[in-house]
Amino acid sequence: MAVDFEKFFYPESVVVIGASAVPHKPGNDVIRNILANGYGGRLYLVNPKGEEILGMKAFPSIQDLPEGIDLAVVVLPAALNPQAIRDCAAKGIKAVVLAAGGFSEVDEKGEELQEELTRAVRETGVRVIGPNTSGHTSTPHKFTSTFFPQGKIPGGPISYIAQTGNFATHTMRYITTGENFGVARVVGLGNKVDIEESDVLEYYAQDPETRAIFIYLESFKNPRRFFPIAREVTRKKPVFLLKGGATAEGAKAAVAHTAAMAAEDRVIDGALKQAGIVRLHQYSHLFLAAKALASMPLPKGNRVSFLAPSGAMLVVLTDLCLSLGLKVPDFEENTRQFLQSISPPIVRMRNPVDIWFSAGIHGVEFAYREGTEAALRDPNIDAVIPILLLTDDTGVPPLDFLVDLARKYPEKPIYVTFTGEKKHMDAGKAFLEPRGVPTYPLIEEPFEVLSLLARCRRFMERE
Amino acid sequence: MAVDFEKFFYPESVVVIGASAVPHKPGNDVIRNILANGYGGRLYLVNPKGEEILGMKAFPSIQDLPEGIDLAVVVLPAALNPQAIRDCAAKGIKAVVLAAGGFSEVDEKGEELQEELTRAVRETGVRVIGPNTSGHTSTPHKFTSTFFPQGKIPGGPISYIAQTGNFATHTMRYITTGENFGVARVVGLGNKVDIEESDVLEYYAQDPETRAIFIYLESFKNPRRFFPIAREVTRKKPVFLLKGGATAEGAKAAVAHTAAMAAEDRVIDGALKQAGIVRLHQYSHLFLAAKALASMPLPKGNRVSFLAPSGAMLVVLTDLCLSLGLKVPDFEENTRQFLQSISPPIVRMRNPVDIWFSAGIHGVEFAYREGTEAALRDPNIDAVIPILLLTDDTGVPPLDFLVDLARKYPEKPIYVTFTGEKKHMDAGKAFLEPRGVPTYPLIEEPFEVLSLLARCRRFMERE
Repeated sequence: MAVDFEKFFYPESVVVIGASAVPHKPGNDVIRNILANGYGGRLYLVNPKGEEILGMKAFPSIQDLPEGIDLAVVVLPAALNPQAIRDCAAKGIKAVVLAAGGFSEVDEKGEELQEELTRAVRETGVRVIGPNTSGHTSTPHKFTSTFFPQGKIPGGPISYIAQTGNFATHTMRYITTGENFGVARVVGLGNKVDIEESDVLEYYAQDPETRAIFIYLESFKNPRRFFPIAREVTRKKPVFLLKGGATAEGAKAAVAHTAAMAAEDRVIDGALKQAGIVRLHQYSHLFLAAKALASMPLPKGNRVSFLAPSGAMLVVLTDLCLSLGLKVPDFEENTRQFLQSISPPIVRMRNPVDIWFSAGIHGVEFAYREGTEAALRDPNIDAVIPILLLTDDTGVPPLDFLVDLARKYPEKPIYVTFTGEKKHMDAGKAFLEPRGVPTYPLIEEPFEVLSLLARCRRFMERE
Repeated sequence: MAVDFEKFFYPESVVVIGASAVPHKPGNDVIRNILANGYGGRLYLVNPKGEEILGMKAFPSIQDLPEGIDLAVVVLPAALNPQAIRDCAAKGIKAVVLAAGGFSEVDEKGEELQEELTRAVRETGVRVIGPNTSGHTSTPHKFTSTFFPQGKIPGGPISYIAQTGNFATHTMRYITTGENFGVARVVGLGNKVDIEESDVLEYYAQDPETRAIFIYLESFKNPRRFFPIAREVTRKKPVFLLKGGATAEGAKAAVAHTAAMAAEDRVIDGALKQAGIVRLHQYSHLFLAAKALASMPLPKGNRVSFLAPSGAMLVVLTDLCLSLGLKVPDFEENTRQFLQSISPPIVRMRNPVDIWFSAGIHGVEFAYREGTEAALRDPNIDAVIPILLLTDDTGVPPLDFLVDLARKYPEKPIYVTFTGEKKHMDAGKAFLEPRGVPTYPLIEEPFEVLSLLARCRRFMERE
């Protein structure tokens, strides 16, 4: 039966079961997170002592709650979870998040407990995220169930599915403090006694708030269900997946971590390709690629133009492009002529663009602005990567022109990277990203990201 | 004949020919650079008007200079360079740096001019760096001949050879503003009418100030000379090379840039391997790998231990290690037992180390300190990568322990990376790097760097 995700992503009423008055306890942090994100629905707390917590009176038990609460976030010790499910069901609560670890991921006793929990879930029909989940987030509804202190999570068009708590915790924290893009939904799957990746993927597929989907998985709960769903989703939305445990040693670590055996890697590789999912191999691509999609359109293909203040850089990066499966095509003749007209006659302008020459005549800002626009206009080009030279001596240009060009050419992505002084790079990022132009600190990164995104467009256009 | 590099790297007297009183002209910036770096020798200027420049009186011509100056830095238009060489020779100047571009890299006329220049060099016996070079640097002598404004260049054990001006200019600027390591020598080769990569490599080989050598080349001037020299150097010092123009398209860009044809790539690949040179494929590795060698010993092998606050991260990174040719071996039994003794019995501790468990009991600082030291002590491990969890909520530990451990285990490298909040990552880098512990902003980077360094050790130990 399809999960009624409205109860998870748009709950009108929420109860925290295991609410705690003690700061830094998960049962306290989860309440703080809910408040920090500005949740506007009704919020109930359950605490055996019926304490007042953060200005709210707690109910002493689930039995004492009013009927028909949409969602319960359970922060109780593992052993109490099966009964909590039954108590929630009795109160008409149909959606539950289970935070506690201590189940099949630890030992045999935990496995037995997980079986008992699974029975409670099946018998009651309650839908469950977890256990051993760090919670879920829905910024369009200003709600999160995570117990890891997050503060206000910025909204945006990217949605994540993560098997592990790690993602919803410190990686999200990196994203909210180090990057300038936002998320729509995050679901930490945990041990998946009920809701699993296929359910969430199905929801994201039709979710108007979700433009692109990023998944971290260690195991597929039900590959026969997952891949057919994925095959349909990827025709409409880009889907990226980082799979833990792709090798024997990785699997060993995976076993230690979640008790989930890693499936045969090559089979997965083929299945992902067939399903149109772009496989990630680097942890950092979970946010570097997401950033490119949060504010820029998906590139229509793999034909790139880039601009650098150095022939040497152009050479190395052209090599990189080819090794990444990117094309560096010739410009149309009128683009070439235009670039030639702003450069000295002794150099023959082409793609990629050495802006050093026109910068010498017309200044750095002019050279980057005109060069970037010429590349954006050229029908042979799908994406443009300006490598901005930012040093005091060459003069740091105002970067508004990139924001303007992004608005003027909304169908082609611009990814910015830098060479020169660190302080100007940091300032460039702080200026451009909140205005919708993604930046990358290392020169290779936008190329790596483009190669991932271009593949995903190819998947979309398959028969 | 071997080049007398003492005249280039330890000149007792230097003349800037083409000195300019106009700020931001190369003939002015070169003087500012020399002064900013604290050069302690005699400095002469030549300027046709005999102006006073930056408080120094210029000589109106080379003829007017005193005899026997060690080094001339010539910042004259291309056409005046051949005569400048002859004039320098007549004054007993035996070492010259030629800054001007406009030779074989631009057109046929430039090519003819370069031939004329080459004749002047041959006939006089003057040794020349350039033309079309952005100069050279020797921090042990507090000297630089670059005309790109650099300020004070920090000293350190890394030496560079770069065919292109780009490196000596904005990439150096990134290194001095964004990283915390220093250089011994930098030579921009330019068009190589005389001194070429083999000469410089030979000097670096025996240079006590140079611990590791990084090379960016677009073409080999004399491969039959270069590779035998390299084969000897790499037995003593790590040598890394980034080759521009490795592909047809890259070559096209290379041709536009320096008129040097890219040689067949696969042949080069084989020759580099045979010579024990580690080939780089990313521009950023020119400084990311250098940083690892500036303060840490070369790893003895490819056996890595890493510590993370997340099983998921361990899985993904274990996969990454294997794809990079790194080993993640089991610890010795007593290391394992020690880690077990500081962790809950329900988890089985192993390499890689999930510090989450001991952090939960003993705190984050204790878990990282004891875990890192255990890995450093283990004879099965060649390098340790702690992935520090830095968030307000888990508590940001003081990082002195890493500085202490680096001193206590000087034979094993530690490379640090982070997860969590950006501000703490930045603070971590600012604290650790000046104290000799290199850090990497993206989790994958220290692993990529280790895989490069481990290869270079293998080369050293070859028959």
